Amino acid sequence: MAAENRQVLLVQRPIGIAQATDFAIVAQPLAPLPDGHFRVRNRFLSVEPAMRGWTADASNYAGLVPLGSVMRALAAGEVVESRADGFPVGTRVTGWFGWQDYCDATPEQVTRRVTATDLPLSLYLGVLGINGLTAWIGLHRYGEPRPGETVLVSTAAGAVGSLVGQLARRQGCRTVGIAGGAAKVDRCLADYGYDAAVDYRDADFAAQLAAACPDGVDIYFDNVAGRVSDAAYPLLAMRARVVVCGTASIASWDPWPTGPRIERHLLVKRARMQGFVIFDHAQEYDAVLAKLETLVRSGELAYREDVLDGIECCPDALAGIYRGENDGKRLIAL
Amino acid sequence: MAAENRQVLLVQRPIGIAQATDFAIVAQPLAPLPDGHFRVRNRFLSVEPAMRGWTADASNYAGLVPLGSVMRALAAGEVVESRADGFPVGTRVTGWFGWQDYCDATPEQVTRRVTATDLPLSLYLGVLGINGLTAWIGLHRYGEPRPGETVLVSTAAGAVGSLVGQLARRQGCRTVGIAGGAAKVDRCLADYGYDAAVDYRDADFAAQLAAACPDGVDIYFDNVAGRVSDAAYPLLAMRARVVVCGTASIASWDPWPTGPRIERHLLVKRARMQGFVIFDHAQEYDAVLAKLETLVRSGELAYREDVLDGIECCPDALAGIYRGENDGKRLIAL
Repeated sequence: MAAENRQVLLVQRPIGIAQATDFAIVAQPLAPLPDGHFRVRNRFLSVEPAMRGWTADASNYAGLVPLGSVMRALAAGEVVESRADGFPVGTRVTGWFGWQDYCDATPEQVTRRVTATDLPLSLYLGVLGINGLTAWIGLHRYGEPRPGETVLVSTAAGAVGSLVGQLARRQGCRTVGIAGGAAKVDRCLADYGYDAAVDYRDADFAAQLAAACPDGVDIYFDNVAGRVSDAAYPLLAMRARVVVCGTASIASWDPWPTGPRIERHLLVKRARMQGFVIFDHAQEYDAVLAKLETLVRSGELAYREDVLDGIECCPDALAGIYRGENDGKRLIAL
Repeated sequence: MAAENRQVLLVQRPIGIAQATDFAIVAQPLAPLPDGHFRVRNRFLSVEPAMRGWTADASNYAGLVPLGSVMRALAAGEVVESRADGFPVGTRVTGWFGWQDYCDATPEQVTRRVTATDLPLSLYLGVLGINGLTAWIGLHRYGEPRPGETVLVSTAAGAVGSLVGQLARRQGCRTVGIAGGAAKVDRCLADYGYDAAVDYRDADFAAQLAAACPDGVDIYFDNVAGRVSDAAYPLLAMRARVVVCGTASIASWDPWPTGPRIERHLLVKRARMQGFVIFDHAQEYDAVLAKLETLVRSGELAYREDVLDGIECCPDALAGIYRGENDGKRLIAL
């Protein structure tokens, strides 16, 4: 066993999106494993858009990551030493293990015990992890898709959006994706089955979007807020549902940004707008993951992983997501 | 029978809130009643905040009132001549009869046949009309109040808001009202049973509002949008519901106004925001009105009428609402 544990610490409070210089990598000797704990050797570290909020926003849903502590992250690995019942050596788990090589964890940190042996462990951080769960639960529970409806998705080629589009299409919906750049627009159409896709970087984006949604938007699954959403709200159809899954286009909420007021759209269209955070839905995970595993095994659900190699990639990995660099679920392989 | 029918016509497309000069009063001779119609002698004409949208906004939920036509309005009166089955002379009705003395109506224009003889007809335009229905259905169906929750209401002393506050209190909620001016704040506390009330005209309004909602806001029943709502959104509690009933504080949506973005509040608080229009709920009217009639008869529901006398008051009546002049449901008695 390695005597050393490399950790990525948050060392500076970012203004807006955390940059590489806001983190530091340190190596700590591994201490003896406390009773009731088990040691996880992380194999994959997750990089989430939501980390922007965890590092920078006083008003976020999970509490600020303290300066000097290991960066909060989901990770997947296996138990290599155990002093806890129920987590013998060899158990494969995902959980809140942080950006580090090893985590001395308690059962409360575990989000899932991975028992399937025919599927790559990394998928449990993406299509079979919170991305898949977010897409499924956000779409079905809050979007309530019906056949023939138009479902609009922002970050449509991203780890969540790409799944939302495919799941909506399976419900008989017409799907329209919004993505940044021609390559991602192409991926929406070629890989993720969108009926139409629009590049938000185009000068006539709003007009293109309106043209792509001739019957209006019944469900807007939004990961970005901001300028992209400003073009979507006026297209809402009667009784539309807006699923607020993320606000990735807003680099900072201090000062608080302004935009066109939304209330009139919601009133006139009798529309509903609903924020949700996947971690509230833990009791649904098992049932939903069973369905997602079936779709992945049968090849009916396309997904991509964007895997960076080595813990050295962590500090810049989040900023890279906000630069639009990733193509699918971003992971760090250790 | 009078040989003449005075009508209030919309003669000019308003910019923002329709002013007295946007209307003209004309007198038309009464034509013979067509077959299938019945003639209603209007006794009370309704004045609604929503008329701003009906007169000015291309994007409103009822279509623009055409220039040169009788101002669209709910009214209450009785049938004085009939060539339609089921509407004999003497029938008391409310409906879309417009700002005029008489309306030659068809059954489709009727919103309610008033059969109770112990209650004033005018109430069926207010507490027993769309105001009461809006308050009840908006609060219960979209707000879903639970005992102990904090319910915040804008235009809390108004025709809808005053009822929302009382109905919420009957559900065991703590109620906080927002109103304009000391007299309306006093009325909230003294007449409508609010646990707290705040004057949005005060310089420290936002701080007062926060102090009045120490546990956050579980339900925000909003009739105004704009600056008042900007102070309310940051106070939303976890899983809050925002009922978007009106946008009265926005004088014009052209150019479209901006304000602090809402998405982050909805996401972090897992909150829901829902627009609704009472006219979608016609199938619920009978059941809800029966409950409201019971509360009015037993004196358990306080309400006020702000009755102006004579059709000459119509042209300025809507602008007066937006100047904050009315104290309760504004009506014109003919």
